[in-house]
Amino acid sequence: MAQKPSIPKGTRDFNPEQVAKRNYIFSTIKSQFQTFGFQPIETPSFENSDTLMGKYGEEGDRLIFKILNSGDFISDYNNNLIKSIKLALRNFKAFIEKNSNKAEKEGFFDNFINVFPEVLRRNKEIKFDERSINLDKLSSDISTKIQTYLDKDFLLEMFVEDDDRYLTTLTIIIFGDFYYELGNKYVGEYISEKALRYDLTVPFARYVVQHQNEIEFPFKRYQMQPVWRADRPQKGRFREFYQCDADVVGSDSLWQEVEFIQLYDNVFTALGLKGTIIKINNRKILSGIAEVIGASDKLIDFTVALDKLDKIGEEKVKEEMLGKGIPQSGIDKLQPLFSLSGDFEAQIEILKGILSTSEEGKKGIEELDFINEAISSLGLQSAKLQLDVTLARGLNYYTGAIFEVSAPEGVKMGSIGGGGRYADLTGVFGLKNVSGVGISFGLDRIYLVLEELGLFPETIAKSTEVMFINFGDKEALFCLKAVKSLREAGVNAELYPDKITNGKHMKKQMNYANKREIPFVVLVGEEEMNTSVYTLKNMITGDQTKVSLEALITAVK
Amino acid sequence: MAQKPSIPKGTRDFNPEQVAKRNYIFSTIKSQFQTFGFQPIETPSFENSDTLMGKYGEEGDRLIFKILNSGDFISDYNNNLIKSIKLALRNFKAFIEKNSNKAEKEGFFDNFINVFPEVLRRNKEIKFDERSINLDKLSSDISTKIQTYLDKDFLLEMFVEDDDRYLTTLTIIIFGDFYYELGNKYVGEYISEKALRYDLTVPFARYVVQHQNEIEFPFKRYQMQPVWRADRPQKGRFREFYQCDADVVGSDSLWQEVEFIQLYDNVFTALGLKGTIIKINNRKILSGIAEVIGASDKLIDFTVALDKLDKIGEEKVKEEMLGKGIPQSGIDKLQPLFSLSGDFEAQIEILKGILSTSEEGKKGIEELDFINEAISSLGLQSAKLQLDVTLARGLNYYTGAIFEVSAPEGVKMGSIGGGGRYADLTGVFGLKNVSGVGISFGLDRIYLVLEELGLFPETIAKSTEVMFINFGDKEALFCLKAVKSLREAGVNAELYPDKITNGKHMKKQMNYANKREIPFVVLVGEEEMNTSVYTLKNMITGDQTKVSLEALITAVK
Repeated sequence: MAQKPSIPKGTRDFNPEQVAKRNYIFSTIKSQFQTFGFQPIETPSFENSDTLMGKYGEEGDRLIFKILNSGDFISDYNNNLIKSIKLALRNFKAFIEKNSNKAEKEGFFDNFINVFPEVLRRNKEIKFDERSINLDKLSSDISTKIQTYLDKDFLLEMFVEDDDRYLTTLTIIIFGDFYYELGNKYVGEYISEKALRYDLTVPFARYVVQHQNEIEFPFKRYQMQPVWRADRPQKGRFREFYQCDADVVGSDSLWQEVEFIQLYDNVFTALGLKGTIIKINNRKILSGIAEVIGASDKLIDFTVALDKLDKIGEEKVKEEMLGKGIPQSGIDKLQPLFSLSGDFEAQIEILKGILSTSEEGKKGIEELDFINEAISSLGLQSAKLQLDVTLARGLNYYTGAIFEVSAPEGVKMGSIGGGGRYADLTGVFGLKNVSGVGISFGLDRIYLVLEELGLFPETIAKSTEVMFINFGDKEALFCLKAVKSLREAGVNAELYPDKITNGKHMKKQMNYANKREIPFVVLVGEEEMNTSVYTLKNMITGDQTKVSLEALITAVK
Repeated sequence: MAQKPSIPKGTRDFNPEQVAKRNYIFSTIKSQFQTFGFQPIETPSFENSDTLMGKYGEEGDRLIFKILNSGDFISDYNNNLIKSIKLALRNFKAFIEKNSNKAEKEGFFDNFINVFPEVLRRNKEIKFDERSINLDKLSSDISTKIQTYLDKDFLLEMFVEDDDRYLTTLTIIIFGDFYYELGNKYVGEYISEKALRYDLTVPFARYVVQHQNEIEFPFKRYQMQPVWRADRPQKGRFREFYQCDADVVGSDSLWQEVEFIQLYDNVFTALGLKGTIIKINNRKILSGIAEVIGASDKLIDFTVALDKLDKIGEEKVKEEMLGKGIPQSGIDKLQPLFSLSGDFEAQIEILKGILSTSEEGKKGIEELDFINEAISSLGLQSAKLQLDVTLARGLNYYTGAIFEVSAPEGVKMGSIGGGGRYADLTGVFGLKNVSGVGISFGLDRIYLVLEELGLFPETIAKSTEVMFINFGDKEALFCLKAVKSLREAGVNAELYPDKITNGKHMKKQMNYANKREIPFVVLVGEEEMNTSVYTLKNMITGDQTKVSLEALITAVK
């Protein structure tokens, strides 16, 4: 029976027009990345699990797509598990047969849990791969499970009194129970050693460390590849989507923050998207404020509350802060923050007042000042730089500048880009003290904004420009010679593959050209072949003229 | 502890130079696809498993990368299994308590296996997803397993005599045994509903059927995306690699075969790879020969043997055919085939002799003749079309033309492209009688050939063209204004981010420019700023000149 075709939820097919529009955005971004001196790299779609796991917090880890090991992935695991349980049971049996004292038994169990991992390691029949199985934990879980069963009188009795038959049965019981209760704990990691890329930043950090000897630092790289997240699919949120990232690693210079603001401005201007707002903040400002109001230990609570200012208003924000244990006296000190207004410089002045006692805060102000002055002096084409002290995205990893770009006023859309500086990008992979700063473009949202504002150029989805009607094999061959010349001249041209039979199907071919919006159609019959001309029909105006091959090429180019 | 970074075997990182070279091949192919009127589509990286499974033969299915369902994927499965086993046991227990007759017991078991799937379906506590679990098979397996255990006297005794305690224990035993013996059979499909794309053809067929109402047929599409195969990695064989495919669906016209030969010729000529050999064959020729020699039922054996002619020679091929049961009289009729030589036309004449009694064979000759005459008349730029009756790739699915492209003579490399016609591409997804024909380019091998022959243009890996030395913040700002103008003029330019401190690190910046092969460096100090000039250093010749901004842009463009 035929399958009804569908694709997994959260994924998308892209038709020719969508591919063309997406490629237009990609190539615009790419071309700007290149003029700024960024170089492309690409990394594999899947990484070793341990490269990705533990880098995105608990929530992120859960959203990583894991790839099942190939082949008969589970038999090895099961065999090892059965053998381990049996081995443990044999040891217990030998002990129980000699000792029946309850206290001694307990002691034996405790001791056994400690030596069991080593017993497993030495046994040549058991081949647990310790890269994916923690033998200490496994040993403890197996032993505990066995203890539970041996506490059941009727089983213990059978077990001790009888031969190997009961030992095997008990092994299977414990194996089953173990699977039932703890299956998920071990088997998941054991049967999956690879995972799909969750973002481009962690693979980039891995790349930098792995290839550090081939790289000249500072390394300016860009990367435009899909990432995958097992998020609940919803409008505008997909399980497969592209990220477009540019990062510099290996330099603390603030000139890079300046350049990234210019880069945002250049890309959005090139896309015709004028009036974007580039919001900037600095983690040091947020830390400084937290310090000043006596909430240094509550930085996250504080910023999470502050981040909601736009949505819930001043009073609710204050309530939330109080609720999180930030003292009223501290919140009072924040008052100037709630009425922060005016241009970049004016806001900086207010911040200077608030942060006068915080060294870290003052450092943050200094950085913002430097960046703002440079941008003022260099000018932006169409974007506006705005200080936003409530901006707290990526606070878990950003250590300096924080960026976020909003679509022009009037377009309802979340951020269309974001980024920041992270003091230690590569430390987790063993390369310490390498500072990085980077930005990202949100392709899908930019696509929606350009669509909404009608900013895609009309020509980008341009496909075939000239189609030749196929009147028959002789005519087709004659036409293909012209098609060849047109293609050599860079014109997208094609011959309708099926010929007209019994004078029929001519309309079908014209309809095809119409529906595909092919602007020119060429008709060649006996007469045209004899006189080496082409009847050129303009599908928009309906005009028809007889032209030479040369004139044909000129007319459609 | 820091992780030592690595990537999964069979996958690759691409550095900036490699990305540039790969993109050069991609964009050359893409540009030719477009002049031929092909339109791009993209499909998701992963498909529903049932879209892919069963389409590539047993061997192919094994090589498909499966994605683990997200979340706690195994608990549901385990709970359902436990409940099912317990439900079956309760039924057995009720029956056994009433009947002890052995024959009746057997009958009950057989009958139970038949009704059990329905029992499971009706039980609201058990929620097996029948898209991934075959309940008939599962019911039978569970029942058989139970039967085995109830045949063990000591268990049966406990089970019948006692209360639910033993029923639970027995459930766990059977659950464990089931997992141990049959875990792989069910759990693999249950915990994975998605799989990574194995090729572009099946997803394309799925796309065509799913979007048939939006598509104008004949549909000429191209697709350039990665595919994944769990193949054993070895030199030149990767687990992630790109395919570049162009196909037409919805037309039987042989003009398409003609166009695909032109397309191959155009692409390889555009890449500077002259002298490629486009081999062509036709499945109908192979079927015809098999028919003539009385081996119609041994088409695969026959073609597999014939395919080895180049490698093992005439005698061994004949031996293999004999061994496979092809009669000597038939093999004798093949004699002209072994000495097949001369140009396309000459070979066609010999084939006409061999195939005079086969209708299918004659149809194959007619098709080859048509294609060859058209190509002779249209001419090829640098490739050569060659008839190769031993060519049998993809015989499982190709029904007409078969293509394969070899690198120019002297380059040791397998095929760098291939394709063919398949009469029924989309039937498996419910759209019958849609013929397709397509070709594919082998990116990785083309890359190696271009590298070996030194055919990559020197300019493609071009990165930054001008770098400004960073003498300090004042100078940097001055420089960034020039950088901005250069970028606006389309020149890739950058400022070294870190400034020289205490007159040091100048050499470091120059070294950086050297290693990155940046051709021009600009130096701006106090003097330059005062007079608004730029000291331009040519890094290849070492020449240094003072120029205006305008002259700078002209000089480096």
